[in-house]
Amino acid sequence: MADVLPQPLVVSAEECELAVRVPELIEEIAQGFIDYTAGRVVVPPVGYLGFTEPTGDVHLKYGYVKGGDVFVIKVAAGFPQNSERGLPTGDGCMLVFSSHTGFLLAVLLDRSRLTDLRTAVAGAVAARALAPKSVARIGIIGTGVQARLQPLMLKHVTECREIALYGRSAERAQSCAAYLELAGYRVHLCASAEEVAESSQVIVTTTASRAAHFRAAAVQPGTHVTAVGADAPGKQELDTALFARAEVVVADSIAQCADHGDLAPALASGDITLHRVRELGSVLANPALGRTSEEEISIADLTGVAVQDIVIASHVMRHNAAAART
Amino acid sequence: MADVLPQPLVVSAEECELAVRVPELIEEIAQGFIDYTAGRVVVPPVGYLGFTEPTGDVHLKYGYVKGGDVFVIKVAAGFPQNSERGLPTGDGCMLVFSSHTGFLLAVLLDRSRLTDLRTAVAGAVAARALAPKSVARIGIIGTGVQARLQPLMLKHVTECREIALYGRSAERAQSCAAYLELAGYRVHLCASAEEVAESSQVIVTTTASRAAHFRAAAVQPGTHVTAVGADAPGKQELDTALFARAEVVVADSIAQCADHGDLAPALASGDITLHRVRELGSVLANPALGRTSEEEISIADLTGVAVQDIVIASHVMRHNAAAART
Repeated sequence: MADVLPQPLVVSAEECELAVRVPELIEEIAQGFIDYTAGRVVVPPVGYLGFTEPTGDVHLKYGYVKGGDVFVIKVAAGFPQNSERGLPTGDGCMLVFSSHTGFLLAVLLDRSRLTDLRTAVAGAVAARALAPKSVARIGIIGTGVQARLQPLMLKHVTECREIALYGRSAERAQSCAAYLELAGYRVHLCASAEEVAESSQVIVTTTASRAAHFRAAAVQPGTHVTAVGADAPGKQELDTALFARAEVVVADSIAQCADHGDLAPALASGDITLHRVRELGSVLANPALGRTSEEEISIADLTGVAVQDIVIASHVMRHNAAAART
Repeated sequence: MADVLPQPLVVSAEECELAVRVPELIEEIAQGFIDYTAGRVVVPPVGYLGFTEPTGDVHLKYGYVKGGDVFVIKVAAGFPQNSERGLPTGDGCMLVFSSHTGFLLAVLLDRSRLTDLRTAVAGAVAARALAPKSVARIGIIGTGVQARLQPLMLKHVTECREIALYGRSAERAQSCAAYLELAGYRVHLCASAEEVAESSQVIVTTTASRAAHFRAAAVQPGTHVTAVGADAPGKQELDTALFARAEVVVADSIAQCADHGDLAPALASGDITLHRVRELGSVLANPALGRTSEEEISIADLTGVAVQDIVIASHVMRHNAAAART
């Protein structure tokens, strides 16, 4: 019996990246958010393993889109003390199974790169839905992977090629700026996050901060702000007062954002109540729930939901030549 | 940064099996049960995904032994309707990560064979701890994978080479008997489970039954009974009255067995109360908690705990030549 099990495909990180078609993936992830909010995605609670010596966190996200061909299990490990030894601070992979037979179809050894990509694509999906018509500058706070990838994905949803960048480390800001220049942006290094906020019409915050980067008052009318950094209780990038000021507040998952997104401190402070928050999938399905004028301020709080992993893994399966034959 | 991540090893089902050293594994799994009961194993609740068209169940078991070098994530999928298409009804694999760095070390594409092995090894561990000194016959109820593997593992803990076998399908019973004869047993095919029970000093029930195979009265004084079939609420192999009669009742995990092992209906019927149940790890650590005479009846209710998966994956990592170099 066991002999007839198909041999699962093992896909390297490079092959995973090569299989990604960005414009198409943006549409698919947008549809994924719509399916998620509409209840068409089965996503059990995230599994968790914690370590203390050294410190480490492992998250298991898994699920499937009802009626889809696959189910996906993603493992993401973060061990911050690795950096003291000059090692990467995380690793991750995805397992793709047939939802028709339960057979393992592929092991995506993506080393978390698909997670990075799907996170950046969500930023593009949010900006396309919520940004004002006219964007002269994109503001980026942070200098890490998302500070690089978010602008790459935004290129597909805006004509703007000007970036205002701020990072605490001048050296890392310069390195990030050089990367973004190569990607086709003109980059203005700013002396403060406040300066970024004041001069940008789309702002993306991408750090592991535990305090607001800029005052709510620094944000100009008409601005859209996406926050992608907060992924655990205690993390915060936005001034809670910005939630009071914003006309449109969107969460990728209301439950998750209320627990550990930027929404959490804003709810705690009383600057917003849950009834004013829309889920991204609702706004995508019904744009009337989004921005209704060029003067409104909008916020997208993105904590990452498993449907993004399911969608990008399915996408890789379709576009990786070897995987597509399974 | 990402370049320095070590390439994970991909180990085939055959390589997994070749890496297993049974006598050593029996000791390691026994130690695993001791560690589990002593609270030295981190095992979060089992993750679950359910499917309806077709019917399918996916379980995620994961965890680590404190102070160990690895953490293990096991995925097991069961899609019973596959059999209508002549396909195997399940698949599974294990991911082995470093608990020092979080890096993925190996993907064990074992297609659930390591799960089958560790389940059979647990039977040997239980029999070694609980069986009477003199065993003339081993009784096996069922004709599936465990009906074959349990005797293979029992060879390492008993001198007995006589088997009394019963299965509902005569054809499958003959095929199973032929396998066990090749493995060095003399096999007596019985006309009923009752006949097996009456004539055996060690009995192993290995089926997905939802009702008792034999009356408690059929079991002779001094017999040890291991039940490995029940893995979900509603399944049952043993007469609940046997729990009232048995002097020694052991569960691999009291919590799991009380939920979905053979212990569950016995608790519901009132034939036993929890205070009479010992965990296998307690008996292994302190044999005085086990059988105290050759006349006592003992029961081991085994539902499978993640520590077995952790131990066998670690074992394969040590003995697979390529994995041992990681």
